[in-house]
Formats: sequence, C-alpha cells, structure tokens
Amino acid sequence: MKRALMPGSFDPITNGHIDIIQRASQLFDEVLVGVAENTGKNGLFTLDERKEMATSALVDLTNVQVVTISGLTAAFAKEHAIDVLVRGLRNTQDFTYEQPIAVMNNHLTDVETMFLLARPENAMISSSLLKEVVRAKGDISAFVPKIVNQRLKNKFEVQ
Amino acid sequence: MKRALMPGSFDPITNGHIDIIQRASQLFDEVLVGVAENTGKNGLFTLDERKEMATSALVDLTNVQVVTISGLTAAFAKEHAIDVLVRGLRNTQDFTYEQPIAVMNNHLTDVETMFLLARPENAMISSSLLKEVVRAKGDISAFVPKIVNQRLKNKFEVQ
Amino acid sequence: MKRALMPGSFDPITNGHIDIIQRASQLFDEVLVGVAENTGKNGLFTLDERKEMATSALVDLTNVQVVTISGLTAAFAKEHAIDVLVRGLRNTQDFTYEQPIAVMNNHLTDVETMFLLARPENAMISSSLLKEVVRAKGDISAFVPKIVNQRLKNKFEVQ
Amino acid sequence: MKRALMPGSFDPITNGHIDIIQRASQLFDEVLVGVAENTGKNGLFTLDERKEMATSALVDLTNVQVVTISGLTAAFAKEHAIDVLVRGLRNTQDFTYEQPIAVMNNHLTDVETMFLLARPENAMISSSLLKEVVRAKGDISAFVPKIVNQRLKNKFEVQ
Amino acid sequence: MKRALMPGSFDPITNGHIDIIQRASQLFDEVLVGVAENTGKNGLFTLDERKEMATSALVDLTNVQVVTISGLTAAFAKEHAIDVLVRGLRNTQDFTYEQPIAVMNNHLTDVETMFLLARPENAMISSSLLKEVVRAKGDISAFVPKIVNQRLKNKFEVQ
Amino acid sequence: MKRALMPGSFDPITNGHIDIIQRASQLFDEVLVGVAENTGKNGLFTLDERKEMATSALVDLTNVQVVTISGLTAAFAKEHAIDVLVRGLRNTQDFTYEQPIAVMNNHLTDVETMFLLARPENAMISSSLLKEVVRAKGDISAFVPKIVNQRLKNKFEVQ
Repeated sequence: MKRALMPGSFDPITNGHIDIIQRASQLFDEVLVGVAENTGKNGLFTLDERKEMATSALVDLTNVQVVTISGLTAAFAKEHAIDVLVRGLRNTQDFTYEQPIAVMNNHLTDVETMFLLARPENAMISSSLLKEVVRAKGDISAFVPKIVNQRLKNKFEVQ
Repeated sequence: MKRALMPGSFDPITNGHIDIIQRASQLFDEVLVGVAENTGKNGLFTLDERKEMATSALVDLTNVQVVTISGLTAAFAKEHAIDVLVRGLRNTQDFTYEQPIAVMNNHLTDVETMFLLARPENAMISSSLLKEVVRAKGDISAFVPKIVNQRLKNKFEVQ
Repeated sequence: MKRALMPGSFDPITNGHIDIIQRASQLFDEVLVGVAENTGKNGLFTLDERKEMATSALVDLTNVQVVTISGLTAAFAKEHAIDVLVRGLRNTQDFTYEQPIAVMNNHLTDVETMFLLARPENAMISSSLLKEVVRAKGDISAFVPKIVNQRLKNKFEVQ
Repeated sequence: MKRALMPGSFDPITNGHIDIIQRASQLFDEVLVGVAENTGKNGLFTLDERKEMATSALVDLTNVQVVTISGLTAAFAKEHAIDVLVRGLRNTQDFTYEQPIAVMNNHLTDVETMFLLARPENAMISSSLLKEVVRAKGDISAFVPKIVNQRLKNKFEVQ
Repeated sequence: MKRALMPGSFDPITNGHIDIIQRASQLFDEVLVGVAENTGKNGLFTLDERKEMATSALVDLTNVQVVTISGLTAAFAKEHAIDVLVRGLRNTQDFTYEQPIAVMNNHLTDVETMFLLARPENAMISSSLLKEVVRAKGDISAFVPKIVNQRLKNKFEVQ
Repeated sequence: MKRALMPGSFDPITNGHIDIIQRASQLFDEVLVGVAENTGKNGLFTLDERKEMATSALVDLTNVQVVTISGLTAAFAKEHAIDVLVRGLRNTQDFTYEQPIAVMNNHLTDVETMFLLARPENAMISSSLLKEVVRAKGDISAFVPKIVNQRLKNKFEVQ
C-alpha cells in the first residue's frame, strides 16, 4: 500500500489543485491533502476555512482525506508513514521554487517528492491571481469549486 | 480604428515604459496608458502623482492619453472599447508573470493582449530597482524622464 | 492602414499557428503569412506544399494572404511595407529564441515585432512533435487542419 | 498493483537514470525501463547494446525490467497496462521539453506522467555531455556504471 | 593586485556563501565580504550579528575580510578600489535577478561583476529556506557553520 | 599571477566575445583565448581561419593571446596552468548550457570557471544568428570586427 501527501496552503483550493489530487488518487492507494499553516504569507482564509473548503471540494474522491499540517511537512510525512509527497508544476518558476524544497524534505526525513504537470488549461490558475480578480469583482467561477467561489465573494463582499 | 491600452502601476514611469508606449503608438490609432491603483503593492507615489508624471513624460505622443484604472483592467478594457492590451516583456520572468494574467483577462472579457520586447538597453530597468538606487543616493537620470528623476530625489530627500 | 506579417516555416501549419494568425487578423487591417524557405532545417514538406496547406487552412480569413519569403524576413518586410511582424510565444524557450531575432530584424530594417501568447491548449503543439507522433502512427487530428492531417499521413504512409 | 514505465533512449544509461529508476521502483510495484529506438537522433549505441547495458546496470532492482519500445510510447503504455510514465527533471530546460510530450501522451492514450527531480549531484549529467568527454579522452567513471564506462571507452578507442 | 567584493545580506551566512567566497579567494589577492544593511527585507539578524557570524565562519581564509556596507554597493566598491564584485548563481532565477543589478552597478561606477556557479550540492541552499526550516524545528546543521546553526536555534528557541 | 582561459569555437569571433575577453583581461594578468576544434558542430570556418580572425581582432589587448585547443578543455587548462576558465552568459539558456560543463570541468581537473554577463547590447548576438543573416545578405557589420565581416561576406559570396 502506498500513501501520498499533497501539502499546500490551499488558500483557497482551486480546480488546478483538485485536478492534481484526483490524478494522484489514481496512482496511490491513499492520498492525504495537507493544509499547512501559513507561516510566511498572510492567508486570506483561516486554516479551518481552508480545510473545510478542501474537504467539501474533494468529497467524491474516496481515497482522499484532508488534514492540517503544523510544523515541518517532512516531519509530518515521517510520522504518518507517507511514501511520497505530490506537488503540481505549472511552469519553470514553479520548478525553480519546488526544487530546493524537495531536496530539503528528502534531506530531513528521506521522503520522496513526485510532480505532476498541471494540465495546460489549469496552468494559468493561481490562488493569488484568483483572489486579486475577485477583489476587483471579476468572475472566477470557472476556476474553483462552487463553495470556494461563494466564500471568496463573501470575503470581498462581492454581491 | 484600433485602440490599445497599456496598463501598469507606473510607480514611477521609466524610459522602458515610454519606449513600449511609443512603439505601440505607431501600431495603433490610439493608445491609452492606464495607471492602476496598487492593490497589492505599497506604492511609493500616489495614483495622482503617477498619472501626472506619466502625462508629462508622454506629452509629445499625440495619440497617447494617460488615464487611471480602478478595478479590473479587463472590465476597463471592455467599457472603453479597447481592442488590445499592450505589455512589455524584458525577460523570461516577465513572461511567466504575464502569461496567466493575459489568459485571465481574455477569459473575463475576451480582450486580447500583445507584447513588445523591451529593447536590450531597457531590459535591465525596473521601477523597483530604480527606487532602491535612488534611496541609496545613486544617480538614475539615464533611465527616467527628468520630472521623474526630480520627484524620486524629492521623495528620498536626495539633494 | 496597418499591415502585419507572420513569418515562419509552417512545416506544416498547425492549429496553434492558425489561432495566432486569426487573432492578429483582428488587430490589423491586413495580415501576410510568410512561408519561409528552410535554410537551416531539413523541411518535411516543400515550400509549395507548405504554402498550399497554409492557404487552404486560412481561406476563411478574408484579410489574410499566404506568401513565400526567400531571403531576409526583415528585407521582405521593408519591401512590402509591413508595419509589424507577428510571432507566437508558447513558453520561456520560445521567448529566448525570439528575442535576438526581433532585435536583429529591428536593427536591419527598423521593423517592429509583436508577440501574441499561445492559448494554453495550443502551447503544447509544435510542428516537430506532431511530425514525430505521426511518424510513429499516432493520431494528431486534434491539432491540425484536416488537409494537414491527411498530408502528414500520406508522407509517412500511415493508412 | 501499479506499473510504471520509464521511457528514454538510454544512449547510454547513466547514474542519473539509475537513481530515478531506483526511486520509482520504491513507489510502484513494477517498473519497466523502456529503451526507445532513436528516430530523430543518431545514436552512439545500437538498441541492443543500450538494452544490454541498462539490464546489467539495473540487475539488483528486482521489480525493474528492461524492455525495448518501437513506435509510440503512449501506445506501448496502453498495450502493457502501464499506470504511469516516469521521467526525471534536471532543470528548467528539461521541464520545457517534457511538458508538451506529457500532454501529447495523455492526449493519445490517457496515460499519466509523473516526474522525479534529479538529485543535485546528478542534475549535471547528460548522456550527450558524457559522450563528448569520453571522445576527448576524459574520465567519466564517476557518472556511469562500470560496464557503460568500459563500453564508452571501447567505442572511442580510449585505452 | 586584484581586490574583489562579495556583497550580500548574509542573513545568515551559509555553506553556499562560504564556498563561493573560498573559491573567489583563490582567484583574487584580497576578498572583502560586504554585509549589507537590509533596506527592503526584514532581516532576522542585526547587521552586527550577521557580520559576526560571517567573520567567525571565514576566519581561516587569510585574504578574506568581512566589512559592512551601507548605501550603494557600487559606491562602496569605488571608494574601496574594488576591481570586481563576486556573486554566486544557483539557478536561472538567480541569473534573472542578478543581471539588472550587475548592469546598474556597472552604470553607476564602472565596477565589474563576475559570477561563480554554486556547486550542485549547494545550489539548493538559501538563507530564507533555512530560516523556515529552523522555525519549524528542522535540523539544518549540514548547510551552515556551527555558530550559525546555534544562533538560528536560539532565535527560534529550538532546544 | 593569475591566468585565465576563455574557450570557445569562435566561428567566427563577434563583438560579444571581444567584450568578454577585454573585460577578463582587466581582471587577470594573462588571458588565453582558446579556439576549440568543433567536434560536434559543422564549423563554417576552419580552425586556422577562426584563430586568425580572433588574433587580428584582439591584437590591441597586450595580455591576451589566441591559441588552439584540441581535446579536453579541462586537460588543456591543467597543462597550461590556467587558474580559471572564463565564459560569457547572455541569457537563462546559456546558464543552463554552461552549468553542467563547468561542473564537469571542475570534476575532471579541479579547474574553476567564472562568468561575465554579456552587456545588454551584446546579449542578442550569436555567431549562428550572424551567419544566417549574412547568408541571406543582411548587414551585420555592427556586431563583428571588420575582418570578420569581410570574411563572412566572402564565404557566402555577398558582394
């Protein structure tokens, strides 16, 4: 049995994340989606809100479970007997960002990381761009689950 | 008649921006320069200051007009019957930054985006680097219009 | 009146090329598609075959005309009163490839180059990958016009 | 049970390849290493030689099997009930090269591709650089299995 | 006699920095390590702490001296008769970041910049990633001198 | 005394090469320019022609000497007591190309490599693009020494 973990801040979860998770769920027996506390960035949603939205969006994937991660992802992976971390790659900038993190995680607890490429139609989606667009009252319903669309509009008081 | 919009924060306008605008003004009948409110970044200059400097710097281009944009660029483009957004590209990082924005703008209101490459001698100019240099009392008069150079020195109280 | 030229080897023309040409045809009054002799590469199709396929594929775009270019693109542009060259960009590698060419063309005859970004779903298409796939008997009909699909199959004797 | 395929030309297999294959062999129940005919490139070694070296180098990995691929990788994957293709990524250039191939393979037969990042010490190894060095009589024994080192020296008649 | 300056924020100094400095110290007669005030970033350590750690870590390199830089690096270089600035490059993102700075420094005081590539095993180290890992109680002793490891643990009250 | 070597194919030498060599000649006591045999590429000019043009173009740099390299650059460097290899970087593609070569050379004979960035106005020049332009009868006299311009025109029988 192989168990994967997709860590991220999921602030909020997008269709791009969901696609990667769905694909990972076909490669491994169990996939944990690990919503991480934002140490560096100022999150828009709380940890609980982010977990709740992800849980709702992924409810149909029976071998996927949403959890929260505090502290090191690599430590979490070791404690929970994770075989592999899963991350999506959209472009060369993601690649350059992810490379040192994967090496560091492997250094810390020998955990492996594998990457799936975003589908072209998802490669242009980022949580931060979506938030900017909603803040300016643009419609991003094509890129997120319904619950996320509604929550984003509530946050920015878009009617 | 074709109408282009070059959106940006222009905080402040540089010779790099001016070159792109000047070249765009030869390809299209009318070019709007849209100074956008900075939602994300902390601007150095106010929206009015940025607009004033841009207006002054572009006064000789008769088919160019400086305006301010609040809210979505794509919505502004639709309201003002813009045929095409114009942006400059200096390097691969600019490319990766601009790609999702162009796709999002097209998704929102079908507006097209075209890109002109910065001339090599301008590709090294960025408003943020120029501000850092002036703050440290370096001379950047080669890279900006006179009015901008003076305003930057005033801001940082460089004599 | 503004006149654009999209130069390329079009060996063969793909849906990615067609999308760029169609979008350019909405920005400019006239668009020439310039099928260039392959000096460096060994083409699969002859210049005539490439021109014929492009002409057929673009027949519905009334302000688009397919021509052949021999010699310098920049010289052709000058002789034919071209206001702007148009090229598509799929990724950072395209950017790095196109940058010196645009600078050189501008140096040679002052011609301007503008870029449109490939739509995400087209950014993965290249003539060379398509040829490899057809050679190995894969179906690439989703990425090219019908006439091109048939000609490719004929070339590689795929039934 | 999950079955992976690592396709490549392996001309010849290097320690970089072996590391990726070994790591993949821990994530999946079975890993096929698919030595592909070189349609485009002029290979140094024949298909049989490449397969033999790979087989020898991977003999200790009990769930790994070396096979040859002719024709489309995606078609091979479908015929052999492959769940996932595995490829290594060394740098942003590899990323840009692999992205359209992964999309095309998925288009052709729905096969998924996942990527493992080369370890930093392996990220500088390429079969083509190694061949150039041996041709010039440099020692590359640190980067390849013994059998490959010997065969390379034989090819270039290095004593 | 040739004198080099390696400027940086060194917040804190890592084994990656030390490797570059050590290699530069073999190419030039004297190497100054210039710890710069952080105007833009919020530093973790004070300028004095950063200088002290760097001094301690580099004590064995007899032609290396640690200094602090306030104001423009280019101005400092001119005042101290520096022949060349030295910087390390880890990846394409570093390249894109450094290019305009090198051009600007050259513009300001004609100072030259040369680059050494990070060794592959160091290319994954960044001060910011190390700080994140220690904050989350991970062990990064493999990537920094002992004094830095201890100071980082003290800062984040890791026992 | 420090001795540098700038290796390359110089087929032919351009103003971009000359700028890098001139700058290196100010950092080191002696600079060898090593014209390498083209094992992989089909050269336009013979080794002797390339050496002759480089020698002529660099005649004013008194601490620069043009030599030919056969075999491994790293071996040459060791035999000739070279302290450092010098290479120019124009863009991220150059970076990705040079990184494994620098690591390999260091592995082979411990030789160090340093990089100077091409000046922006030279970053768009490549020997291969220049050759293509001259072949198509374009004027590239702004980018090469006079002797090279003449020789290129002779090769392609441009009057």
